[in-house]
Amino acid sequence: MKIAVIGLGQMGEHMAERILDAGHALTVYNRTAARAEALRARGATVAATPAKAAAGAEVVVTMLADDTAVEQVVFGADGILPTLGSGVHVSMSTIGVAMAQRLVSAHTGRGQRYLSAPVFGRPEAAAAGKLYIVVGGDESIIDSVQPLFDVVGQRTYRVGADATAANLIKLCGNFLLQSMVQAMAEAFALVRKAGIDPARFKDIMTSSLFNAPAYHTYGDLIAAEKDDQGGYTASLALKDNRLALAAADALQVPMPFASTIHDQFITAMARGYERRDQSVLGRIAAENAGIGDGSR
Amino acid sequence: MKIAVIGLGQMGEHMAERILDAGHALTVYNRTAARAEALRARGATVAATPAKAAAGAEVVVTMLADDTAVEQVVFGADGILPTLGSGVHVSMSTIGVAMAQRLVSAHTGRGQRYLSAPVFGRPEAAAAGKLYIVVGGDESIIDSVQPLFDVVGQRTYRVGADATAANLIKLCGNFLLQSMVQAMAEAFALVRKAGIDPARFKDIMTSSLFNAPAYHTYGDLIAAEKDDQGGYTASLALKDNRLALAAADALQVPMPFASTIHDQFITAMARGYERRDQSVLGRIAAENAGIGDGSR
Amino acid sequence: MKIAVIGLGQMGEHMAERILDAGHALTVYNRTAARAEALRARGATVAATPAKAAAGAEVVVTMLADDTAVEQVVFGADGILPTLGSGVHVSMSTIGVAMAQRLVSAHTGRGQRYLSAPVFGRPEAAAAGKLYIVVGGDESIIDSVQPLFDVVGQRTYRVGADATAANLIKLCGNFLLQSMVQAMAEAFALVRKAGIDPARFKDIMTSSLFNAPAYHTYGDLIAAEKDDQGGYTASLALKDNRLALAAADALQVPMPFASTIHDQFITAMARGYERRDQSVLGRIAAENAGIGDGSR
Amino acid sequence: MKIAVIGLGQMGEHMAERILDAGHALTVYNRTAARAEALRARGATVAATPAKAAAGAEVVVTMLADDTAVEQVVFGADGILPTLGSGVHVSMSTIGVAMAQRLVSAHTGRGQRYLSAPVFGRPEAAAAGKLYIVVGGDESIIDSVQPLFDVVGQRTYRVGADATAANLIKLCGNFLLQSMVQAMAEAFALVRKAGIDPARFKDIMTSSLFNAPAYHTYGDLIAAEKDDQGGYTASLALKDNRLALAAADALQVPMPFASTIHDQFITAMARGYERRDQSVLGRIAAENAGIGDGSR
Repeated sequence: MKIAVIGLGQMGEHMAERILDAGHALTVYNRTAARAEALRARGATVAATPAKAAAGAEVVVTMLADDTAVEQVVFGADGILPTLGSGVHVSMSTIGVAMAQRLVSAHTGRGQRYLSAPVFGRPEAAAAGKLYIVVGGDESIIDSVQPLFDVVGQRTYRVGADATAANLIKLCGNFLLQSMVQAMAEAFALVRKAGIDPARFKDIMTSSLFNAPAYHTYGDLIAAEKDDQGGYTASLALKDNRLALAAADALQVPMPFASTIHDQFITAMARGYERRDQSVLGRIAAENAGIGDGSR
Repeated sequence: MKIAVIGLGQMGEHMAERILDAGHALTVYNRTAARAEALRARGATVAATPAKAAAGAEVVVTMLADDTAVEQVVFGADGILPTLGSGVHVSMSTIGVAMAQRLVSAHTGRGQRYLSAPVFGRPEAAAAGKLYIVVGGDESIIDSVQPLFDVVGQRTYRVGADATAANLIKLCGNFLLQSMVQAMAEAFALVRKAGIDPARFKDIMTSSLFNAPAYHTYGDLIAAEKDDQGGYTASLALKDNRLALAAADALQVPMPFASTIHDQFITAMARGYERRDQSVLGRIAAENAGIGDGSR
Repeated sequence: MKIAVIGLGQMGEHMAERILDAGHALTVYNRTAARAEALRARGATVAATPAKAAAGAEVVVTMLADDTAVEQVVFGADGILPTLGSGVHVSMSTIGVAMAQRLVSAHTGRGQRYLSAPVFGRPEAAAAGKLYIVVGGDESIIDSVQPLFDVVGQRTYRVGADATAANLIKLCGNFLLQSMVQAMAEAFALVRKAGIDPARFKDIMTSSLFNAPAYHTYGDLIAAEKDDQGGYTASLALKDNRLALAAADALQVPMPFASTIHDQFITAMARGYERRDQSVLGRIAAENAGIGDGSR
Repeated sequence: MKIAVIGLGQMGEHMAERILDAGHALTVYNRTAARAEALRARGATVAATPAKAAAGAEVVVTMLADDTAVEQVVFGADGILPTLGSGVHVSMSTIGVAMAQRLVSAHTGRGQRYLSAPVFGRPEAAAAGKLYIVVGGDESIIDSVQPLFDVVGQRTYRVGADATAANLIKLCGNFLLQSMVQAMAEAFALVRKAGIDPARFKDIMTSSLFNAPAYHTYGDLIAAEKDDQGGYTASLALKDNRLALAAADALQVPMPFASTIHDQFITAMARGYERRDQSVLGRIAAENAGIGDGSR
């Protein structure tokens, strides 16, 4: 297939590599052009604008940081909307439901094809082709893009014709993840202050009730206070929290946990922790309990 | 071993059965005597008071509903304190840290032996000998009781000489569980109101990031709104939430999630849901979002 | 002075009446033209568009429901930006800090004059010329508009050259008000459930610690469950809550009370209470406590 | 009247002085005897135990720090229960509803007379006889004690025959106060971070919507960051918050604001601020926003 990948952050770059390795013809675009050079060396074509990247592609993947970046790449000057033609726009970024709806409307209005296909997984999973893909949109379009999904993901979940459902499910999944992190943050602060080794507590929990990858990953990060090593920054996590709250506001669903998480991430921002991993919630909880590196 | 089990609720009864089946000499006591009859028929001795149950036993297990019940059974008239002798009191109930400290002090002060050994697992796990046991106390005492633990549990976690650490870990584990339930409650309300099948959302989450038993169990209960079938009632869950908050208060650890959970369970009580499973948090979230059976 | 008033809701209409009564030349515009007829009968000129209302006016007052309405009236087709000329745009609506900043930039960029002058006070206060006006902007511009402020307000607070400060103060004032309402909502639910007359509790509080108008007004509304009579709807209150949260997010200030209020208003929306007064928070608290009309 | 005052903290001492000045015969008791010497010099009799203070008194006022102190003074060895006789026990401390109920039961069971009469007002108000007294109990008993209330208070609110209603109203009043403080804490942090003088914001609010003594007092304390000068410590405030939450738990009333306040006070404790005034909530909010003395 002729595939374009727009957005070469940690996730997009790994996905592009896998697409190349699988033998597809790849064109890439990134706002900061230097990030595209390694892929050029491996055989990718580097486009000067999103519009040029999209021209002639069968599938255009967008993997961008936030709604604003998607807006520019799609609707902005040199955006993909005029050049997409018969290609499929596959939006894999974590974006808001309202923005996804705008994409649906814009593409549908022009007779273009569109899928929402956000993913679960950290950059390591992207590098290994082990992402979980949640895809919404027309079944036949999904069929046509499935080979791409199989290259970057270990499993694809089809959630129906309404593409935005995929986006909401992604936001809700991230919310579950953040809730797990905040719950561990509080529990770890409590056991630590009681003189119990948090790593021991983590071992007990993850070998009994919570033997799931997410608990292992984040339990280790919080217990060892390694929030400087994560790939999912507090800034991004706060963005996703805002998107979940916006979706909940629009649908009139109160989410007290999401509100609490919002306040905790805002505190993290105010303390200058925006570049740390989202497991920085563990640091905030510890500081508020008067323990940890940063406690007074 | 000569073992006494005091408290024959769902958990205690199943544990007593396994102890009998393993060939130990068993004496039981329950406040409501009728619940002891089935065990008597299987060979257990039924004692008229906790004191008599404890007299002569090598191990006295208490498995009771709350701190008040433990106080009566240990410190009350006909309590076990005067008759325990050289036996080991193994407190397996979910009780507060302060109460556990009282037990440590009372037994130690009399030269008696004591372990805190609360368990994770629902009644089905107790029946199958699949509990997870978290035990705190003197290593040699634990060694002497290990055969009993092996009969009722699939794994024993030793957490050190301070018995109360086991109690705090148990409370924190229940807090993680309740946080998971509340997070799912909010997420499921959001996806349902968006027209997405919550069972589908549950499947995606539990086959990717959250492939842990607890997510499967509670995800199914919430998605199917089966909170009338659980074994862990909202009343008990609220009790455990109070104990976690009390421990956090004593150690000066703020726990905003635990506070939110408290408010949600209080709402559940006010709506008459005290007998439902703790997954009733899903019902509360749905009602507050204006959906579900009970919405107005 | 030649004054234009754009936006004839409850607040704007009363302000327009006072301006007429004070002898100023008045032009009005309202999206729903019928609302302007009474003022026409009293001598006002009715303009067909915001642009026409602003043309030739010395002062253009906008008093609109939300940011979207302000955007249309200022930046939209037939907006005031091209026709304002040497007049002063006085934005008296409760709008977000970011929108206020856009107004500052737009007017300043064209060499136009602008003030932010949001008000505290319910419609009755507007009718009586008893509003409290918080005004930000250039001192000499404020001087020139002061005669207008004296007609509609009982007091003007000048808060400096940065116009947006006035908007933030207005949002924070509304936040204090909503916090007061929510606090009373919880307290009244508690005393009511204890069998104490909430009106008695209200009398004690407002004749001792809290002898302030806001406590009297909202205390009566909540105690008597008269949330169908208020002039400040839950929908508007939620809008203002969102604006405060957005300002706090932008400045990285966690506001847990504001987050809680958000959840309560969302619950009110989900229960169909969007047209009730913001004292509906009392109803929500009562329902969640299992008491009151709507309890189950 | 022959009056005994038990508990000579800041509040009790000022009340005792006024009672002496009004010409009543006064006996006092304080756990730390030295605090009674100044009163002895002014004519008071100093008793060696609560029991001796109560013997022969017509009215026994208890004004103590918390439930534990009340329990000791009433039910402990040398407590007042055996010696109260025909005197009236007037409990003016801020205590829990459950403890108040125990006092009602204990006194009634012995044919003794009891009133709950907690007060609103800081130590300065006690010194000036300007307290607000909320009294519950038998009307004729209140009549007999009214002369005492008139000496220490500016107004007495009678709330009915159920004495514990007075205690709940006191707790709810303190909750309203704490909610006001927390709301101002958040709002002041927001305006400060926006570069607005918080004292200016305070002036605007307290001269318009919130012209009540409590807003002036705490607004000044928070704006000027003078939380080292208050008479109502964060420790005491946390105690009262716990009592309100306990009452709400018992009556099944969810109180999300009270839960949030709990978390904020616990954070204050963890940061070593237990001796500061309850306006320390302003400091916590500022620190969490990354501003103020203690921000990092």
